Amino acid sequence: MSTLSRIGLAGLAVMGQNLALNIAEKGFPISVYNRTTSKVDETVERAKLEGNLPLVGFHDPESFVQSIQRPRVIIMLVKAGAPVDQTIKTLSVYMEKGDCIIDGGNEWYENTERREKALSEQGLLYLGMGVSGGEEGARHGPSMMPGGSLEAYKYIEDILLKVAAQVPDSGPCVTYIGKGGSGNFVKMIHNGIEYGDMQLIAEAYDVLKSVGKLSNEELHHVFSEWNKGELLSFLIEITADIFKIKDEMEDGYLVDKVLDKTGMKGTGKWTVQQAAELSVAAPTIAASLDSRFLSGLKEERVEASKVFKSGGFGDILSEQAVDKEKLIDDVRKALYASKICSYAQGMNLIRAKSIEQGWGLVLGELARIWKGGCIIRAIFLDRIKQAYDRNPDLANLLVDPEFAKEMIERQSAWRRVVCLAINSGISTPGMSSSLAYFDTYRRGRLPANLVQAQRDYFGAHTYERTDIPGSFHTEWFKIAKQSKI
Amino acid sequence: MSTLSRIGLAGLAVMGQNLALNIAEKGFPISVYNRTTSKVDETVERAKLEGNLPLVGFHDPESFVQSIQRPRVIIMLVKAGAPVDQTIKTLSVYMEKGDCIIDGGNEWYENTERREKALSEQGLLYLGMGVSGGEEGARHGPSMMPGGSLEAYKYIEDILLKVAAQVPDSGPCVTYIGKGGSGNFVKMIHNGIEYGDMQLIAEAYDVLKSVGKLSNEELHHVFSEWNKGELLSFLIEITADIFKIKDEMEDGYLVDKVLDKTGMKGTGKWTVQQAAELSVAAPTIAASLDSRFLSGLKEERVEASKVFKSGGFGDILSEQAVDKEKLIDDVRKALYASKICSYAQGMNLIRAKSIEQGWGLVLGELARIWKGGCIIRAIFLDRIKQAYDRNPDLANLLVDPEFAKEMIERQSAWRRVVCLAINSGISTPGMSSSLAYFDTYRRGRLPANLVQAQRDYFGAHTYERTDIPGSFHTEWFKIAKQSKI
Repeated sequence: MSTLSRIGLAGLAVMGQNLALNIAEKGFPISVYNRTTSKVDETVERAKLEGNLPLVGFHDPESFVQSIQRPRVIIMLVKAGAPVDQTIKTLSVYMEKGDCIIDGGNEWYENTERREKALSEQGLLYLGMGVSGGEEGARHGPSMMPGGSLEAYKYIEDILLKVAAQVPDSGPCVTYIGKGGSGNFVKMIHNGIEYGDMQLIAEAYDVLKSVGKLSNEELHHVFSEWNKGELLSFLIEITADIFKIKDEMEDGYLVDKVLDKTGMKGTGKWTVQQAAELSVAAPTIAASLDSRFLSGLKEERVEASKVFKSGGFGDILSEQAVDKEKLIDDVRKALYASKICSYAQGMNLIRAKSIEQGWGLVLGELARIWKGGCIIRAIFLDRIKQAYDRNPDLANLLVDPEFAKEMIERQSAWRRVVCLAINSGISTPGMSSSLAYFDTYRRGRLPANLVQAQRDYFGAHTYERTDIPGSFHTEWFKIAKQSKI
Repeated sequence: MSTLSRIGLAGLAVMGQNLALNIAEKGFPISVYNRTTSKVDETVERAKLEGNLPLVGFHDPESFVQSIQRPRVIIMLVKAGAPVDQTIKTLSVYMEKGDCIIDGGNEWYENTERREKALSEQGLLYLGMGVSGGEEGARHGPSMMPGGSLEAYKYIEDILLKVAAQVPDSGPCVTYIGKGGSGNFVKMIHNGIEYGDMQLIAEAYDVLKSVGKLSNEELHHVFSEWNKGELLSFLIEITADIFKIKDEMEDGYLVDKVLDKTGMKGTGKWTVQQAAELSVAAPTIAASLDSRFLSGLKEERVEASKVFKSGGFGDILSEQAVDKEKLIDDVRKALYASKICSYAQGMNLIRAKSIEQGWGLVLGELARIWKGGCIIRAIFLDRIKQAYDRNPDLANLLVDPEFAKEMIERQSAWRRVVCLAINSGISTPGMSSSLAYFDTYRRGRLPANLVQAQRDYFGAHTYERTDIPGSFHTEWFKIAKQSKI
C-alpha cells in the first residue's frame, strides 16, 4: 500500500463492522483488523458492495498498525474485560509514542482509567468511548461518548463529528465528555435509563393489553399515535413496529410467541450498584433491573401462579370495565411522568459521579448528544437540555418549572393507572417506583423521623431536631418504661 | 495475675463493653483492652458496679494477650475496615500458633476472607461474627452469626451458647453459620432486612398519621396492640414506646421534633449492591435504602414541596374521610404482607450467595437464631423457620402454603392501603415495591416478551419462544417496513 489510512478499527463483530463502514463512507480511509480473519474479509466485501468505500483489511496486527498514519488512532470494538486487555496487548507493541487507542465498548469506567494510566507509561493515549445506537446506529450515525485524553479526542474530532448522528438544530451527537472513565460512565447511565424506558413501555403495554384488552393491532395504532407527540422516540417507534409483525411459523403475532424472559449484559447492574455507592436514589432503574431478574424465573413464576390460582385468584384479579380511550390517554400520561422521574434519577447519578471524580460534566450537553443515534433518542431530551440551559445547577429535573408543570398536569392520570394496575393484580414496578420517588421528593416532611428515632433507640445513633441545631440522644427505653400515656 | 482469663475482648466502645460484661456475667473470666485506655478503666469500673464480674483490664496489648489462656481467643469490636486491620496487627504479634481472632463488627465479608487467609499463614485462626442486638442485646443476650474456622468456633462454642439470647423452645441465638465470610454476609442481609422492616413501619406510621389523622397517643395504642399479634417484634415494641415519649424541651411529643433525616452505615448499601450482583430482586430493601437517601435531601425536599404547593397541590393531596378502625386493620395487614416479601428477598439473597460460594447455609437455622437478641427479632421468624422445615428447598417464602394463605387473606387490604396512599400523595415505596414484587412473582406471563423483542430489534440479542425450543432472531425492522396492518 502506498497511502496510509487515517484511522484503524479492530474487532469486527456487527458493531465494529458497521462503525468501520460508517467511517469509510464519511470519506476517512480506514484499516480494519480482527483476530478471526474471516470477519476481515467479510468487512472488506461489505465495503465493496456498499459503494467501494475506502477500507483496507489486514490479517495480522503488525501490518494493520503500520498501515495507519501517525499519530495512529485505533478504535477497538471487542467484548469488555479481558478481550480489551488482550487487544491492547496485541496492538500496542507495534504502536509508537503519541499514538492512541480508543475502546468503543461498554466497559466499566475504572478499567478504562487503569488502562489509560498503564498506556501513558508507554507514551500512548487512551479514550473510553461509549457508542450507542445498535447496528443501525453504528452504520448510519451513532451517539458517541468519548472520555479520557483530550489530546486524543482532538486527533479524531473531525471524524467523530461526521460519523455521529446529525440532529437538525442541535448538531452531531458527540462531544468530548470529560477526563478518565467519564465516557464509559455516561454510557453506562445511558443504558440504565434505557432499561427504565423499556420497562416503562412494557408496563404500559401490560396495562393496555391485560386490563384494557387492546389487541396487537390496537397497540400498534396506540404506539404509532404516541410516536407523534411528547413520547416521540426510537423505543416507542420500534414498539409500534413490533406489534405489526405476524409470526412466520404459526397464526397470530410474533410478540405473543416471544418468551417473557429478558436478557441483560451488565450495564444496568452497574448503574444500580453505582446508585447505591453514590447515595443517589434510582428506584425506576432498579425496578427495571429487578423486573429482568424476575422475568428470568419463568418456571418459578409459573409454579407460583398455580399456587395463587388455586388459592382463589388468577393472574388478573378482576375484569374491570374500562373506557379504552380514557385508559389510553391515562397510560400515555403515566408513561411520560414516570419517564421524567427515571431521567431525573439518571441525570442526578451522572452529576453525583462528576462531583465525586471532578469530571465537570455538563448535563445539558449530554441530553443534546442523546437526541440522535442512540437507543434512548427522543424529542423529550430537548426538554431536558432546555431545563439545564435554564438552570445548570438544577437540583432535580422534577423542579424545573416546565417539568413541574407537566407533572402536575399528569399526576391524576398517573395515580389512576397505578391504582388500576394494583387493583387488577398487574404489577407496574417502574411506574409505581417513579410515583413513589415523586411523592417522596416533593414532600417537605417524611416519616424518616421515626426511623431515626428507632436508630437512636436501639443503637444510640443520635438524631437532629427540627427546631434546634445539634445532635441529640435520648434514653428512649428508660423514659418509655417510666412514661404512662 | 495468677489465673489466666478464658477469653479476651479488644475495642471497648458501647458494643464491646457490653459484650465483655455479658461474657463475664456468664462466668467466663475475660481480659479487655482498648487503645484509648480510659475506656478500659470505664469497663473495669462497670464490671465492679454490675456485680464484681470476672473482668480484667489492660492498657498494653502484650500483657493483654499474655493474660489469656491458650489457645487464645480474642474478640475485636472495632470499626470495620482499616481499624480492624490495625487491631489485628497490634495483637497478632503477641499471639501464637492455634490462637484465634474474632471480628465481631459489621465487616464486608471479603475482608474477613482476606484476613482469614493472611492469618492462617501465621498459624492463627479467624472468625467473622456478626453480632446484632444493639447495646441492650450485647449486654443481655445478642444474636450472633459466627462464620469462618469451625475449629475456632469450637473453642468458644460453650461461651457463645451462654452469652447469646435464649429463646424458649428454640435455644440460644447462635449457630456456626459456615465457612469464610458467611457470618458477615448473613449479618449484612440481616441488616438489609432491618432496613426493610423500619421503612415499612415508617410507612404504616405515615399512612395512619397523615391519612388516618391518628394522634401519637393513638399510634402508641395501635402499635402496642399490634405487638400482641402476628407483628409481635422488637421494632414494633420500640415504635410503640417512641410514641409515648414527650419532648423534654417543649410541649408535645419528641417524635414530632426529630428531624426526618435517616443516617446509615453501609450494610444496607452492600445488601442492595449484592442483590444486583447475584441477580436477585430485592426491591423492598432497595426502596428502604432509597428512602434513606431521599430523607437526607431535606433542603431539596422543602424546596420541591414549595414548587408543587404553588402548582396547586400540597403534601397531602386530598383529605379523604376514612374509617379509622378499618384503616388500622388494613394497614396492619399491608405491613405484614409487605414484610413477608421483604424477608423472602433477604432469604433468597442468602441462598443465592450460599450457592455461589458453596457455603451450604441452612435458611431455617438462620431464622431460628434471629428469633431473639437481634433487632429484627419477631414471632414471625418462627413461621419462616417452619416454612423451611417443611421444605428446605422452598423457592420463595411466598409459595410456602402457610404464607401463601396469609398473602391471599391480606392482599385486598394491602391493595387498599397502597391505593389510598397513592391517592393521598403519601409515598409508600416499601409497601408498593413489595406488592409489585408479589404481583410480578406470582404471574406466569409478564410483559418481558416485549422487552426481549425490543432487544432483538435494536441489538440482535435473540429471543426464545413460548412454543418451540431454541434461540431466534427476527429482522424486525425489515419486516415492519414491509408490513401493513
